[in-house]
Amino acid sequence: MRVDGRAKNELREVVFQPHFVKHPEGSVLIAMGETKVICTASIEDRVPPFMRGQGKGWITAEYAMLPRATEQRNIRESSKGKVSGRTMEIQRLIGRSLRSIIDLSKIGERTIWIDCDVIQADGGTRTASITGAFVALAFAVNKAMSEGKIKEWPIHDFLAAISVGVDEKEGEILDLCYQEDAGAEVDMNVVMTGNHQFVELQGTGEEATFSREQLNKLLDIAENGIDQLITMQREVLGDIAERIK
Amino acid sequence: MRVDGRAKNELREVVFQPHFVKHPEGSVLIAMGETKVICTASIEDRVPPFMRGQGKGWITAEYAMLPRATEQRNIRESSKGKVSGRTMEIQRLIGRSLRSIIDLSKIGERTIWIDCDVIQADGGTRTASITGAFVALAFAVNKAMSEGKIKEWPIHDFLAAISVGVDEKEGEILDLCYQEDAGAEVDMNVVMTGNHQFVELQGTGEEATFSREQLNKLLDIAENGIDQLITMQREVLGDIAERIK
Amino acid sequence: MRVDGRAKNELREVVFQPHFVKHPEGSVLIAMGETKVICTASIEDRVPPFMRGQGKGWITAEYAMLPRATEQRNIRESSKGKVSGRTMEIQRLIGRSLRSIIDLSKIGERTIWIDCDVIQADGGTRTASITGAFVALAFAVNKAMSEGKIKEWPIHDFLAAISVGVDEKEGEILDLCYQEDAGAEVDMNVVMTGNHQFVELQGTGEEATFSREQLNKLLDIAENGIDQLITMQREVLGDIAERIK
Amino acid sequence: MRVDGRAKNELREVVFQPHFVKHPEGSVLIAMGETKVICTASIEDRVPPFMRGQGKGWITAEYAMLPRATEQRNIRESSKGKVSGRTMEIQRLIGRSLRSIIDLSKIGERTIWIDCDVIQADGGTRTASITGAFVALAFAVNKAMSEGKIKEWPIHDFLAAISVGVDEKEGEILDLCYQEDAGAEVDMNVVMTGNHQFVELQGTGEEATFSREQLNKLLDIAENGIDQLITMQREVLGDIAERIK
Amino acid sequence: MRVDGRAKNELREVVFQPHFVKHPEGSVLIAMGETKVICTASIEDRVPPFMRGQGKGWITAEYAMLPRATEQRNIRESSKGKVSGRTMEIQRLIGRSLRSIIDLSKIGERTIWIDCDVIQADGGTRTASITGAFVALAFAVNKAMSEGKIKEWPIHDFLAAISVGVDEKEGEILDLCYQEDAGAEVDMNVVMTGNHQFVELQGTGEEATFSREQLNKLLDIAENGIDQLITMQREVLGDIAERIK
Amino acid sequence: MRVDGRAKNELREVVFQPHFVKHPEGSVLIAMGETKVICTASIEDRVPPFMRGQGKGWITAEYAMLPRATEQRNIRESSKGKVSGRTMEIQRLIGRSLRSIIDLSKIGERTIWIDCDVIQADGGTRTASITGAFVALAFAVNKAMSEGKIKEWPIHDFLAAISVGVDEKEGEILDLCYQEDAGAEVDMNVVMTGNHQFVELQGTGEEATFSREQLNKLLDIAENGIDQLITMQREVLGDIAERIK
Repeated sequence: MRVDGRAKNELREVVFQPHFVKHPEGSVLIAMGETKVICTASIEDRVPPFMRGQGKGWITAEYAMLPRATEQRNIRESSKGKVSGRTMEIQRLIGRSLRSIIDLSKIGERTIWIDCDVIQADGGTRTASITGAFVALAFAVNKAMSEGKIKEWPIHDFLAAISVGVDEKEGEILDLCYQEDAGAEVDMNVVMTGNHQFVELQGTGEEATFSREQLNKLLDIAENGIDQLITMQREVLGDIAERIK
Repeated sequence: MRVDGRAKNELREVVFQPHFVKHPEGSVLIAMGETKVICTASIEDRVPPFMRGQGKGWITAEYAMLPRATEQRNIRESSKGKVSGRTMEIQRLIGRSLRSIIDLSKIGERTIWIDCDVIQADGGTRTASITGAFVALAFAVNKAMSEGKIKEWPIHDFLAAISVGVDEKEGEILDLCYQEDAGAEVDMNVVMTGNHQFVELQGTGEEATFSREQLNKLLDIAENGIDQLITMQREVLGDIAERIK
Repeated sequence: MRVDGRAKNELREVVFQPHFVKHPEGSVLIAMGETKVICTASIEDRVPPFMRGQGKGWITAEYAMLPRATEQRNIRESSKGKVSGRTMEIQRLIGRSLRSIIDLSKIGERTIWIDCDVIQADGGTRTASITGAFVALAFAVNKAMSEGKIKEWPIHDFLAAISVGVDEKEGEILDLCYQEDAGAEVDMNVVMTGNHQFVELQGTGEEATFSREQLNKLLDIAENGIDQLITMQREVLGDIAERIK
Repeated sequence: MRVDGRAKNELREVVFQPHFVKHPEGSVLIAMGETKVICTASIEDRVPPFMRGQGKGWITAEYAMLPRATEQRNIRESSKGKVSGRTMEIQRLIGRSLRSIIDLSKIGERTIWIDCDVIQADGGTRTASITGAFVALAFAVNKAMSEGKIKEWPIHDFLAAISVGVDEKEGEILDLCYQEDAGAEVDMNVVMTGNHQFVELQGTGEEATFSREQLNKLLDIAENGIDQLITMQREVLGDIAERIK
Repeated sequence: MRVDGRAKNELREVVFQPHFVKHPEGSVLIAMGETKVICTASIEDRVPPFMRGQGKGWITAEYAMLPRATEQRNIRESSKGKVSGRTMEIQRLIGRSLRSIIDLSKIGERTIWIDCDVIQADGGTRTASITGAFVALAFAVNKAMSEGKIKEWPIHDFLAAISVGVDEKEGEILDLCYQEDAGAEVDMNVVMTGNHQFVELQGTGEEATFSREQLNKLLDIAENGIDQLITMQREVLGDIAERIK
Repeated sequence: MRVDGRAKNELREVVFQPHFVKHPEGSVLIAMGETKVICTASIEDRVPPFMRGQGKGWITAEYAMLPRATEQRNIRESSKGKVSGRTMEIQRLIGRSLRSIIDLSKIGERTIWIDCDVIQADGGTRTASITGAFVALAFAVNKAMSEGKIKEWPIHDFLAAISVGVDEKEGEILDLCYQEDAGAEVDMNVVMTGNHQFVELQGTGEEATFSREQLNKLLDIAENGIDQLITMQREVLGDIAERIK
């Protein structure tokens, strides 16, 4: 039995609170169990210098944790004066993932800033961030279309992310909470489209390794988890979901 | 008439959501109108080097805004690699204010970290932070007492903060929202105890000045606002409020 | 009796050495007792990016201490690679204060840089900085007018600053030296115009508080001190003082 | 036909120059085609603070490029004053990978610093770094054993890494050079042991995605490439290779 | 004729104001023409970590300019967040030079901090800093001896520094002011003891070069300038000068 | 006898490997004994802002060491987030030296970036860097001429650098290895043209001094060493050497 009584292939309770903050073009609070992330999408009417004059847009992501999102208080990265390697890795992952399901040439020379701020952490913050950020992005794009800034719908598929891992006793499990994550032999994050296409696949065996057979089992349960998440995204997006597919 | 229809000496709607995040020893979400701040208090069992061996504790505060707490997205201070002057000024103000109503020798060699993270900003974020932080502090101290870490109740008065200002048309007004703040001739923050003692008084006339008479009017309405805030703090703290006075 | 034998409402000896350094458009060395600050005003023929095209100017201030201005040597902020919160707070205060008595639209698209460098510290460095900076500013503006850069006299009032505080034994006192400042229950800085209008009022009770009655006494003695400082500013400015009022 | 005439599953020419620099405990220059990396392993007789007193060691990696390793000169990260997200991501990958094939409790409270400095870049620098770093690590561990610092052989498997990717025309290809990498739809890095166990699997489809079927093809050719690299590692390590398996 | 009417081998007017600031153990304001530097020596009762337990002391120097010491205002290095290469080069030069004429084993495990703060610059700031710093150092050492901290007199020779250079028209000249320095073909700084021993010799031909013959002429006039400076140092040091030689 | 058996005025074995890395316009690996430096010259078609519009070019240099170039591993300057004073001093020296033998008006508005990366250090890294950088520069300039970017040959003399020093036992010696350098009483770096003109002369007596007579002996042996180095530069440059003189 898993630490919180779930079945091996069972997600934690997922809740989306749309429009959680009022200023951003799109926003949502996603809760996956006790992990809670505020995801916002902000549209800026210009692109970074290296992209100017190409007639297409860009999506960039930032990720942070409140200092007391965790069991032990973390030092703020602003106090340290630099962003950690872990944070940068996650930011790059979120940005890359979202860029895969949108046609950047359809949003014009605009930057969409994705901010994922973890207010409470219990494992799976990067995957919750991606799943929530997709919803915030869709809200923001929808708003920009209704204002006539974007002419043609640019998002061509759903996108969600989930963690899977190998537990010494339980074997392959879905959606690890912090306690499971800390003890797992293998930790894998899968970012996938509604079409079951991989966008990112990151599997790591810290002081451990995994076989091809284990990989296949992990991918099977991840695919199933992604399907459930996308069903919930459809629900919270309502009519907007129709435009995506 | 004020921009949001309030009377000159009327507070915005104030809501406290206690225990908003689960890990910190004390936490609250304070909303003052559309301004929303997550305030947490974390207890660390050691003090900074300059205070070691004195048998007393310390309170230090950090303040930040989510990038999209505001109308225009702000660059994260962690990305810039440094904390702005405004942030530092606010952090120092929050820490000083809270240290004035607690007997630091009664908390032992511990640091209480106060984190005020603004998730939505509409004026008055520093005063809302202080008012909320007092509640989070009281929760944290209560928890530490119930665990036997702190032996004697150390908080000897209530503490709240409010902004007042001079509006060209309305004159002296209480609890300025962002739009009022941006246009005010004079901006003043008052931090006060339950006993009507000043802890901090900061009045500024940017490209304007104010007379002794105006000062007195501002202090009158501020005192009244502080009284209302402390009544609400008592309510959310319940039995804990009894220990303070 | 106060530590240096002064009456409660007596200033320390104040000396202005005008044109202390030769390169800046305006400069003065101000000594308030043993506190000595080199104040310079430098005129740059452009404004920061956020102000371009508005046809008006800007004043910005920087403040620093020589490492051995104090009893204990301080680490240079350049060595630490960052400016402390205290320094930023003071810089912002000086800049705001000076902007209140000048009509920025009359100086054209220019930045006036105020530099206050404390070469010896004995309490009241920020108030001495403001009082000295006003003189340096007036010299610089006068030079710019004589060169035809500024067409119409832009400074419309005098400006000075002084500290007041509450001493456990002496009660309310004026112009605290370092030893008094370190022991004071309440510390207040008052920035005021020649017209007795407040520009800034910052009162702090670190681990103490103060009543409305005490506030009023403090403001009375501050007002008197400001009057004396402005009389001395008039003297050092000579003919230039005539233009201000 | 691939850009350099190779078959789809063909490696570039691989050359190891052992003991390329004299000071480090272990060092090698690895060339994979035109990509050249100096890999060194340095043994320090202490561990980072968070690991003290546990009786086990640590491996940490740093990665950098000479400014002119690339077609366009890069600004040094030391000049910029910060390490990029890409660099941090690679450093963390190298460290994690090497920690998976060594028993850290057998090296005592020591840190092994791995430095991978790219002197010429033509794609695949991170995988070349891992493959070379393994050799440098084995040399360093061997030296420490011969000096009696390490008592029992701690490396329990070989380790190599290779890139695979999907090219629009060629389909799944092995060991991408820079030109191929820049144009690839999918880019995947595989870190694997001599036992065909995955240590890391990172697949990314920037502005593209990939199917489960494509993943399987990519893993097949990667496995074959890893086998060839390990054969070459055995050769350059000579007798030391016997101790590993 | 030189720009300011001096003979080729003539120093500018040199003035020492001893004990210019009150807190440091030793201090002097040195003026060489319009170049003015506050030099202080501060004694700290410990050495940097790398020197602990060796029973000897250390001298370290810091150098800075006030922003408006120069014709054009300079950005503060604290604002830039880093110290420039030029500043570091000068700091290292001052420290090295002073360490050459003192027996560090006679000052115990103490650090003497030398601070050279240029308040007005007109060429030759680094040489003026060294010449002034020697005087501040002697005052500080004398104070420490009188307090019994240092038992045996540690300074075994005088030390002064001067610039020489090659001017296109004038040829070899002594003690260059800013205007001469900016136009010189060759710029050389000579740091020398009372005994005519070189401590440092730094000759630079930016976009120019110099012959062995020119070198010899430059050294001849530098030696003469050094002699004059040491005569003045003797005078300002009074009785203390007797202890040095 | 010297530590490595050389005569007092004997260079270590010098080897140039031209075109060591493929991307830069010019590159060479210089080995002086066990000191090995990769020197590259990169041509960028613009100049820094302060030089724009003057129709001439600029040369700037960067210097770094691999962390394990030395006996003890050094922390990377990118990890520390700042460049050390020693590094900056060397970078400025290399840049100044190279600018002395080239006519910058003949290279157009271009920046030539010199990178000197020490891969193995055994004393004399800065002088080896200059001697090698000259060769890389000549290769780069030659390439730019052959491509028509530069119209007229701009390098008007050879340039090399060597260290000399005073050893307690051996007296004046040439080309100090690390062990000799660490023990030397006087350390001097001489940068000289093919014409025996000094470009830079930096002599330092750390905790020691040197006489005019010693200076002359040091310069004699340095001149001889420079001649040998230039002979070798001629050889590796082949036909290009003809253009220089």
